[in-house]
Amino acid sequence: MNDMTTKIDSPETPEKLVERLAEKGRAAQRKLARASDAEKAAALRSAAAAIRDAQGEIIAANDKDIAAAEANGLSGAMLDRLKLDGSRLEAIASAIENVASLPDPVGEEIARSKAPAGMTLVRRRIPIGLIGIIYESRPNVTADAAALCLRSGNAALLRGGSEAVHSNRALHVAFAKGVASAGLPVDAIQLMPTQDRAAVGAMLKAAGLIDMIVPRGGKGLVARVQADARVPVLAHLDGICHTYIHAAADPEMAREVAVNAKMRRTGICGAMETLLVDAAFPASGEVLGALLDSGCELRGDARARNIDSRIKAATAEDWDTEYLDAVLSVAVVDGLDAGMAHIAQHSSGHTDVIVSNDEDAAQRFLAEVDSAIVMHNTSSQFADGGEFGLGAEIGIATGRLHARGPVALEGLTTYKWQVLGQGQARS
Amino acid sequence: MNDMTTKIDSPETPEKLVERLAEKGRAAQRKLARASDAEKAAALRSAAAAIRDAQGEIIAANDKDIAAAEANGLSGAMLDRLKLDGSRLEAIASAIENVASLPDPVGEEIARSKAPAGMTLVRRRIPIGLIGIIYESRPNVTADAAALCLRSGNAALLRGGSEAVHSNRALHVAFAKGVASAGLPVDAIQLMPTQDRAAVGAMLKAAGLIDMIVPRGGKGLVARVQADARVPVLAHLDGICHTYIHAAADPEMAREVAVNAKMRRTGICGAMETLLVDAAFPASGEVLGALLDSGCELRGDARARNIDSRIKAATAEDWDTEYLDAVLSVAVVDGLDAGMAHIAQHSSGHTDVIVSNDEDAAQRFLAEVDSAIVMHNTSSQFADGGEFGLGAEIGIATGRLHARGPVALEGLTTYKWQVLGQGQARS
Repeated sequence: MNDMTTKIDSPETPEKLVERLAEKGRAAQRKLARASDAEKAAALRSAAAAIRDAQGEIIAANDKDIAAAEANGLSGAMLDRLKLDGSRLEAIASAIENVASLPDPVGEEIARSKAPAGMTLVRRRIPIGLIGIIYESRPNVTADAAALCLRSGNAALLRGGSEAVHSNRALHVAFAKGVASAGLPVDAIQLMPTQDRAAVGAMLKAAGLIDMIVPRGGKGLVARVQADARVPVLAHLDGICHTYIHAAADPEMAREVAVNAKMRRTGICGAMETLLVDAAFPASGEVLGALLDSGCELRGDARARNIDSRIKAATAEDWDTEYLDAVLSVAVVDGLDAGMAHIAQHSSGHTDVIVSNDEDAAQRFLAEVDSAIVMHNTSSQFADGGEFGLGAEIGIATGRLHARGPVALEGLTTYKWQVLGQGQARS
Repeated sequence: MNDMTTKIDSPETPEKLVERLAEKGRAAQRKLARASDAEKAAALRSAAAAIRDAQGEIIAANDKDIAAAEANGLSGAMLDRLKLDGSRLEAIASAIENVASLPDPVGEEIARSKAPAGMTLVRRRIPIGLIGIIYESRPNVTADAAALCLRSGNAALLRGGSEAVHSNRALHVAFAKGVASAGLPVDAIQLMPTQDRAAVGAMLKAAGLIDMIVPRGGKGLVARVQADARVPVLAHLDGICHTYIHAAADPEMAREVAVNAKMRRTGICGAMETLLVDAAFPASGEVLGALLDSGCELRGDARARNIDSRIKAATAEDWDTEYLDAVLSVAVVDGLDAGMAHIAQHSSGHTDVIVSNDEDAAQRFLAEVDSAIVMHNTSSQFADGGEFGLGAEIGIATGRLHARGPVALEGLTTYKWQVLGQGQARS
């Protein structure tokens, strides 16, 4: 049944393998680029149906991965990330259908103008081409990334983690079946047939064959990808997110926003890692107390520790640490400029928040803090493609070029200039 | 007088030098990012005035470069590129004033939407940060690139060619004087104080310090930059531009467009390098004859050579060659699909053109040819920021991410998300 996947023990070099798959992917992408909105949506709905139909095979494949992971002594959290069951598969299928229902970005007219010599200039959105996705243990990324790439007319070359190898193959076989049954080119979505780490290296070096790499996973993976890639990378490394409570913040709102930003889910990249309390904010005791009462460990500077004796002493590293846990660094700052200076020094450029009822202070913060996402009077936990109404996300980009913040379909496109003349020659 | 430039014989390593200059540039950029439209425009007008005032010093410096170049036996074309005189300096000053008159892209609202939880989401255009410009012998790039970066709120670290070292320094001193007199941070526009090639290497590796590198120069320079850079590069390598004359092309228009696309200026990246004539186009003899009569050497496939005996035989390399000269490769193709297949195989993705009065054929060409610029019934020589009404250009990008085609102020910006809440916590 596995004729959609390539043989695993290939005598090819990793470079040749990547070149061959990339050329297949690029050829498929040229066809996919001409597919209509309806064709792509239908293919995704077929893929979702095929995944539902293959529930037995996929869960059996996942059982193999889970057994191997247990034998290798993987931790409970990692096992949980790997685990698929009926309801998680249903969530994967629904997520694909949700992507099918999003508007097709391809062909959208971004801008139209008139050239001085009279031609009409149209900038029109097109797919990027072949996207390499390199990810770790969550098998749902196989389907999520495939769906977003296909919806936006891109081919994908997927390379998942070794722990999820059977789950990923089973999901990919089902997804590909759906794509094929809708008449779209099955090579548009390929899964690397080997877990050889050298093949990841070959993907990263495949400039001109792979147009963009999206790493999805922990800091180690992303850092390796950014260090070694010759292909452009859309990545986020750290989410060291700050919340600054201004003197004129509403105390109740400050408390709610701060507790939510830290404690709703501590392990996501949008979780607050540092709280900056203005020295002139009158209710810092209540806010810090609420955080402590909610079970959060606080590590503060001397002035913060004066507010509540339960606060431990912060070290220099604390200001640059992404805890991803119920731990928070806290500093007392003197005014907006001091708060923004701390953020300029320590933020990872992901998401930073001001809580204030002073509109001028908020406007300055929103204009001057140079992060991908700046927020006023809300929780940094909203830093998410779904919460931004994008319908999905391939990741949150903290680089400065191409796309920033939550990236969904639009971030997976580029544009071309169409120049419509009437015989003009340049003088 | 030279206290605006740094000492030339520094004991620093190239890496330390780049780090120090980049940090100065980044600090200046944070101030520049807050400068108003009027302040930036005033600084550019001051810079233009300072260049006019310094005409004597700049031309004296240029004389030194010219004398050295002559002593080194540089060719006439290279000397011409290097040469500054009163009218070229006036053109440089006017170009800066022209950039001053362009609309400020910074702060522009790109999109506004409502998050499902009620927050307002605004995507707003901001500067990229610190841009490294690496260029060759034309000293006008010093002023052009500085003006575009400053107008868009970016700092620049300029590294010009060794042949133009005195001219570049004199232009930079004058430009910086203008920036300073308008009260903007002079370190926003820095010129590398050394011609050490290792310092170029250090710029290319300065990820996190320099946000983007723009190489301006020949293929050798651009290829080196693309191969070695760890910083994102906005570059174009080749301009292998095609014109396809469809069966339903107007013969007169086809002749005019083809001769213009090749012969108006043969040395620019938008010059046509390959002409594809449809076998069903009835006037190919007139078009090819006009090109030959205009002094162009034609290298054709067998069918092209049957049309006019003056056409030489093309070799396989001809289809992948950017002549930048009065030489053109010519092939006869059977229909739109064959023409587009040739382009898919040989185009460098810069600019490709169809000449046709058949609207369906034109629409297919515009949709399916995957180049940065696709044109209908006009000359590829229009591939230029000024001709596109952008007012200027920092280059033409043939990559697929961030910006494509002519890049001016908008391509030198990125965006941030501003999230305006009313106390929302994420559930």
